[in-house]
Amino acid sequence: MEYLHGGDVYAHPGALDFSANLSPLGMPAGVRQAAARSLEACDRYPDPFYRQLRAALAEREGIPETHLLCGAGAADLIYRFVGALRPGCALVTAPVFLEYEAALAACGCRVKRHLLLREEGFEITPRILEEITPEVGLVILVNPNNPIGLCIPPGLLDEIARRCRQTGAWLLLDECFFEFLSDLDRHSLIGLTRQWGGLVVLRAFTKAYGMAGLRLGWCACGEEEMLRRMAAQGQPWPVSTPAQAAGLAALQEEAYLERLRSLIRQEAPRMAAQLRQMGFWVAEPQANYVFWEDPLGRPLAQLLEQKGILIRSCGNFHGLGAQHFRAAVRMPQENRRLLAALNRIVER
Amino acid sequence: MEYLHGGDVYAHPGALDFSANLSPLGMPAGVRQAAARSLEACDRYPDPFYRQLRAALAEREGIPETHLLCGAGAADLIYRFVGALRPGCALVTAPVFLEYEAALAACGCRVKRHLLLREEGFEITPRILEEITPEVGLVILVNPNNPIGLCIPPGLLDEIARRCRQTGAWLLLDECFFEFLSDLDRHSLIGLTRQWGGLVVLRAFTKAYGMAGLRLGWCACGEEEMLRRMAAQGQPWPVSTPAQAAGLAALQEEAYLERLRSLIRQEAPRMAAQLRQMGFWVAEPQANYVFWEDPLGRPLAQLLEQKGILIRSCGNFHGLGAQHFRAAVRMPQENRRLLAALNRIVER
Repeated sequence: MEYLHGGDVYAHPGALDFSANLSPLGMPAGVRQAAARSLEACDRYPDPFYRQLRAALAEREGIPETHLLCGAGAADLIYRFVGALRPGCALVTAPVFLEYEAALAACGCRVKRHLLLREEGFEITPRILEEITPEVGLVILVNPNNPIGLCIPPGLLDEIARRCRQTGAWLLLDECFFEFLSDLDRHSLIGLTRQWGGLVVLRAFTKAYGMAGLRLGWCACGEEEMLRRMAAQGQPWPVSTPAQAAGLAALQEEAYLERLRSLIRQEAPRMAAQLRQMGFWVAEPQANYVFWEDPLGRPLAQLLEQKGILIRSCGNFHGLGAQHFRAAVRMPQENRRLLAALNRIVER
Repeated sequence: MEYLHGGDVYAHPGALDFSANLSPLGMPAGVRQAAARSLEACDRYPDPFYRQLRAALAEREGIPETHLLCGAGAADLIYRFVGALRPGCALVTAPVFLEYEAALAACGCRVKRHLLLREEGFEITPRILEEITPEVGLVILVNPNNPIGLCIPPGLLDEIARRCRQTGAWLLLDECFFEFLSDLDRHSLIGLTRQWGGLVVLRAFTKAYGMAGLRLGWCACGEEEMLRRMAAQGQPWPVSTPAQAAGLAALQEEAYLERLRSLIRQEAPRMAAQLRQMGFWVAEPQANYVFWEDPLGRPLAQLLEQKGILIRSCGNFHGLGAQHFRAAVRMPQENRRLLAALNRIVER
């Protein structure tokens, strides 16, 4: 079987992994302890309705519990939503997180790609509004985008939502990197789910809390019938007992998130600046990863792999090529190791 | 949202739960330790191909690694298989594990029900062969059946498989209670997956190893293209890191399984005999649960719930009614508590 993503450290034991966009701080100790304690109760089925987690999440987000659905990672919810909606035609950006096209293909949906342009710095611009035509049943946007790392300007996002409401398209807004942003609330549409049933906002615990191995994501939607249909698309115990306990504990980790954001805010621009000095074109990083283009088209991922460092080669994204790369922001000295290795490659 | 199963202990804190068919021995200590150790690595994505677990499982079962697919519990694989096959018409027994009809409904498949009859003791008989007609694209059998607890006679199972091969139907054989049987190998068709690509054999770690909260199941199929399609039906990291570690450790737990089987062999017939003495009709238990009918139609589940004991009321299974009940086999003194409570109810 084929694996499309970064983070397959199991095929590269001992490597320093920048290929997956995960928190460099690791799982918070409180989260790990909660997961460990929960193992005592793992001989029973998990709570199918993850009642405690759902109540705590609803309270933090200020939305009704009935507007929430959890899954085994955000990727689980992507498949459930696409499977429940089965749109005839879906609009995605190119590039976009690869599981979207995979989920759309699995249910035979036609994909319309809105190509992001290098000459626009791969930004989402008002050009996208023209593509939201009546045959588009679903618009999928990742904000900040993955792998580029840029946010959609808030005003434009509002316009996109308005356009979807006009044409009757659903909007799936993936905010899985939301917690890494420095000006959070400017960028989320979660509040709009209360007023507009055609909006699904997707979030994860995976990246921000360094708990990708536990599989926990969630989404908010004001149309409860859609959440019921999503629940019916798969097994009734999607969230394991350790994932429920870890998620509940993670909601207490405000200080961890602050530490994380301050680390990213310090490291990401520094990495971008040094990459630019090496002659790369670099997108201004807004989340916890840096995206760049090597005008000389060198096989940087392979060259770094030989030095025990993994980055994400972006050649398998539509709209990108072998000259595009993504690397997560990690701890300062790890980032220095990546940059030094890259420097040696480009100076050769 | 609606919950169809037993085991919702979260709505009944402190209750003694016979409503889910799980190992009464709890999770083996070695499995819990392995899961706990794995939490250190949960800040990374799980191995998408669960390579270590897959290799060990293939070796134990004597089948090629490429014939194996793991999921987040057997229920996850049910949805993936039904979603990948999307048969026009599927034959299921009535009763059958409820997720089958739910998964078939989720993809708009027509369900043909083969009614098991009380006058045949709810056994699967050669009558089923006539129902495997050319329009049936998929036959689903649970062996031993859930909730009845009876095995399909091995000769008949072979005939059913032959009939499916003749008509071109797929056979999904759910062996999730396999480990509880006393004469294991007489009852599994897993060896046939090497010769016939239309057979999928489903197994779980959930029940036998008391690890329902971790979500781990697997299936074997000789047609690798089907496994690829099942993998593409959902997210690419279906098995969490703790589930992988726990599964790998569980494969070492032969002594635990022996202890479990000997407990079940001792307790199940005793429970059945005492239930008969109370005037119930009881199916001869072959797995780790006992199924009975109350000719007087008393609301036993509600009456027991008032005493802090949960059993499975079978009224929501097609082919069964409010007079049918299922209880898991638990530890001797717990079983005595159930039987004493039932005795008080029937003697009133």
